[in-house]
Amino acid sequence: MSGAPEGWHHVDGALYREFEFKDFSEAFGFMTMVAMLVERHGHHPDWSNSWNKVRISLRSHDAGGVVTQRDHDLAYEINSILRSD
Amino acid sequence: MSGAPEGWHHVDGALYREFEFKDFSEAFGFMTMVAMLVERHGHHPDWSNSWNKVRISLRSHDAGGVVTQRDHDLAYEINSILRSD
Amino acid sequence: MSGAPEGWHHVDGALYREFEFKDFSEAFGFMTMVAMLVERHGHHPDWSNSWNKVRISLRSHDAGGVVTQRDHDLAYEINSILRSD
Amino acid sequence: MSGAPEGWHHVDGALYREFEFKDFSEAFGFMTMVAMLVERHGHHPDWSNSWNKVRISLRSHDAGGVVTQRDHDLAYEINSILRSD
Repeated sequence: MSGAPEGWHHVDGALYREFEFKDFSEAFGFMTMVAMLVERHGHHPDWSNSWNKVRISLRSHDAGGVVTQRDHDLAYEINSILRSD
Repeated sequence: MSGAPEGWHHVDGALYREFEFKDFSEAFGFMTMVAMLVERHGHHPDWSNSWNKVRISLRSHDAGGVVTQRDHDLAYEINSILRSD
Repeated sequence: MSGAPEGWHHVDGALYREFEFKDFSEAFGFMTMVAMLVERHGHHPDWSNSWNKVRISLRSHDAGGVVTQRDHDLAYEINSILRSD
Repeated sequence: MSGAPEGWHHVDGALYREFEFKDFSEAFGFMTMVAMLVERHGHHPDWSNSWNKVRISLRSHDAGGVVTQRDHDLAYEINSILRSD
């Protein structure tokens, strides 16, 4: 497990990134794509939204709440959603 | 009411456009943004999805099922969602 | 593979069911839950929506377009979403 | 403006409620219905999700960040989504 995926940082023991969009509609469209992705992975984030901002925290609850390879993999795939926009 | 918005055609008495995306996730992310838009307008489409394709038909049921300015306005706004991707 | 899941019928070579909700919001909330389910299964429907109605057709494109056990399993899970409402 | 809508409390100067669902899918289905509602109102929450839990904070940023009648009205409508489940 090398460095964090682009834009992600280790914050409070989690892998964290903040995303900013044009407006609420675009932010929630992104959240829906992330929701389908995390259901597919069976690995869910702690996340929040305010208008055009989405903040995502990833950690592995089943591994004692630390950041594992699963979180890195998910972070990479979330970044891919962004690029495909 | 001049010509149809870019990419839209008159088909079977409705304003119609087919959209193609990278995959299902991107298609449904787009549908979620359209869903928020049409709720805001109080004007809903007949639409369908198969994997990466979304087909949208607009007509004004409250105006006898013909295409009105409301449908043109909504089609323009749906196109804007696409551009903001 | 015994009879079709409750509410589903064989129509035009597919497993088909029509769902009716209170309004568009409830219909699209249901569609979002189905979208996450089908992404998890990697098995996607042909489906359409008009206001409070959702129509879903299931068939296995990778098995020549016939109805298989996979479609039955997905239909059962879609019914479960409905019950958990 | 009388008492807070059922289940909502004044927390840190906002109108706040926590919702619990069966699983992530049901939680995000609810969030999608709330997303359409708040787009329609043009009034957006600060909200977060962890697996089956959704936490919503309402305040009127355009009124200096205090709780107004608009927040109460939105809270009532969010409660209605829940009941229609």
